[in-house]
Amino acid sequence: VTAGDEEAVRAANAAFYAAFEARDLAAMERVWDTSDAAVCTHPGWATLRGWAEVRESWRVLFANEQRLQFIITNEHVAGHGPVAWVTCDENLIDGAATGTVSCVNVFVRDPSGPWRVVMHHGGPVLQSR
Amino acid sequence: VTAGDEEAVRAANAAFYAAFEARDLAAMERVWDTSDAAVCTHPGWATLRGWAEVRESWRVLFANEQRLQFIITNEHVAGHGPVAWVTCDENLIDGAATGTVSCVNVFVRDPSGPWRVVMHHGGPVLQSR
Repeated sequence: VTAGDEEAVRAANAAFYAAFEARDLAAMERVWDTSDAAVCTHPGWATLRGWAEVRESWRVLFANEQRLQFIITNEHVAGHGPVAWVTCDENLIDGAATGTVSCVNVFVRDPSGPWRVVMHHGGPVLQSR
Repeated sequence: VTAGDEEAVRAANAAFYAAFEARDLAAMERVWDTSDAAVCTHPGWATLRGWAEVRESWRVLFANEQRLQFIITNEHVAGHGPVAWVTCDENLIDGAATGTVSCVNVFVRDPSGPWRVVMHHGGPVLQSR
């Protein structure tokens, strides 16, 4: 990825987590590729495919779950041309509890400019190394 | 992805799981991008970065674990240019036990032709929908 693309992808990744933390479904919809190509695997869940299914999962999560705080660490960006993938750790603070979710987000650059999430996979870190 | 690329990516994904099932480290090394770009998250593990770390994890897994059988389902290929990502379910049979791991594999087409795994993330499916 070029330096400019990397900066734009980091901004898109930050916008994704800002929407997540704010439980803002409209903001989440703006950062996603809202086509049938959207794929999302929440920690421990089966994979969801297509924006309708993915959107519904965010709606349910935002309606039901406690407010989470995210601290993103170990963010790495890689890519070629209009595709980039970010790997990072979501360090979650939920009241007194904490946990880590290891995560990969694939972004595609829309021909109109913005990078959009097309694939999100979060997996629970269950063991230390 | 073009039909030809999709076919080649499916073949590369199958070669990855064949190497995994055969516990064949040399074959695994042939299907991976063996550079610092390699990233791997095994189910429940923290993310490993760079081929040296990733290779060591396969060595340990192949030395210690029981033989696993894989049945890959829900395989979907997407991509643009030299990048493709495969999402699929690894249905594991380990003796009498079974389990599902939801998975995303990112492939990059080497200028010399082959598609190589640059990112593998497997997450345990812990709950039904």
